[in-house]
Amino acid sequence: VKSGIIGIVGGMGPGAGIDLSSKIVSQTLAASDQEHLPQLLFSFPSLIGDRTRFVLGQDSENPGPRIAGVVLRLEQAGATVAGLACNSAHIPAIFGAIQDELNRHGARIRLLHMIDEVGRFIREHHPGISRVGVLGTTGTYVSGLYDMLEDHGLNVVNVSERTQASLHSAIYHPEWGIKSVGPNQRAVDVIIKAADTLRAKRAGLVVFGCTEFPLAYRDPAIGGLPVVDSSLVLARALVRHIDPAKLYPLGPGLD
Amino acid sequence: VKSGIIGIVGGMGPGAGIDLSSKIVSQTLAASDQEHLPQLLFSFPSLIGDRTRFVLGQDSENPGPRIAGVVLRLEQAGATVAGLACNSAHIPAIFGAIQDELNRHGARIRLLHMIDEVGRFIREHHPGISRVGVLGTTGTYVSGLYDMLEDHGLNVVNVSERTQASLHSAIYHPEWGIKSVGPNQRAVDVIIKAADTLRAKRAGLVVFGCTEFPLAYRDPAIGGLPVVDSSLVLARALVRHIDPAKLYPLGPGLD
Repeated sequence: VKSGIIGIVGGMGPGAGIDLSSKIVSQTLAASDQEHLPQLLFSFPSLIGDRTRFVLGQDSENPGPRIAGVVLRLEQAGATVAGLACNSAHIPAIFGAIQDELNRHGARIRLLHMIDEVGRFIREHHPGISRVGVLGTTGTYVSGLYDMLEDHGLNVVNVSERTQASLHSAIYHPEWGIKSVGPNQRAVDVIIKAADTLRAKRAGLVVFGCTEFPLAYRDPAIGGLPVVDSSLVLARALVRHIDPAKLYPLGPGLD
Repeated sequence: VKSGIIGIVGGMGPGAGIDLSSKIVSQTLAASDQEHLPQLLFSFPSLIGDRTRFVLGQDSENPGPRIAGVVLRLEQAGATVAGLACNSAHIPAIFGAIQDELNRHGARIRLLHMIDEVGRFIREHHPGISRVGVLGTTGTYVSGLYDMLEDHGLNVVNVSERTQASLHSAIYHPEWGIKSVGPNQRAVDVIIKAADTLRAKRAGLVVFGCTEFPLAYRDPAIGGLPVVDSSLVLARALVRHIDPAKLYPLGPGLD
């Protein structure tokens, strides 16, 4: 029997943290309550500034140290491995600040890296695909965060600046952004249209590189391409870290 | 600005804890991540024995003290008010043991009582209805937990023993119970049929007195009667406790 407790830094936004928590449950083999894995979800939304605003220079405070503070609180509460339910929190300027702060406090908790896990997942489950499209926040876009998939032998295809502006609205618009009003059709339509532009650029799959997108768009395929949901990937990595024998097997035909 | 942190004892089962967490978000007025309320979800599924098995004498250990242990861990992590994402945990033999353990440790965290909140909710939002049907676990059923709604001037209508047996299967059956395989149509059909028997007994609404039911049945009405979802009610009570100004208003026509 393995032991350990999963910790989730939520609140970025709150729905994404809950979605990650839910996917940990759905990706665990369990026939009763008692067979599920222990997990802690810490959501302090007002504490953590917007990641994209920091990357774009609209906020001066790096949200990294406060995110690290939540990781430290998770460790104090017993968590042994942690995941951040936000792609943009992995942008090097932020993730580096998180790691520095954790090191400064001598943290022993293992912090997984969502984008690195996405790279492994694609190589394992879509071995025939080398050209991958990415949809994310504007912070993720301008920082080139997903270029690190090249370390996994993948070619990354991005949307145009104009399409990126529409994705930004789908996440943040005060009247129809997912963070403002929750899942809605207008946001879904923008995501579908953006994925179409990736297919036109010969992407073989579409990475949802923002944890808000799977809240609104729930199908496993988009415009005929497989969706790789970064939240699902991180959930599976967290389950595997605690107990690989409990990881829900993915069906055939995924490739 | 109000302060305080919501704590959730999840894991009973894990899906119900996540559902409560999600409803706290949906019942909060917020236009950005940062406007949402802080919350902690602690899910230790293997730690806490099944509540109904204890009430039926199939397990000897009262799960109350271990549930209290999670409440204490929530308090230690900063939570100021807590809710238990499980109706059966409020059965007096269990809830009393929780309170005893909290008192013994001098806990200062406020623990809300889900069924008490359901009573208040019905009086506030369905003032014209006095006869209420209840669907719950067999532990809730045999303990008469929901009879405490009579303190709120309500008459409680229960299902027959035979219907109760079918509800038990909808929750626990190894092949089609919600706890075993998640939401599914067979479980939904059982819930609908059980609600029909409550309508036949002239109930004016149906209380989902088990936090597994709303995972499978998501409509706000059942067989023409309003559903009162105990998870939603507890979520609203937790939001109100932290900041009443942020409580999402319920639309008209609820009564």
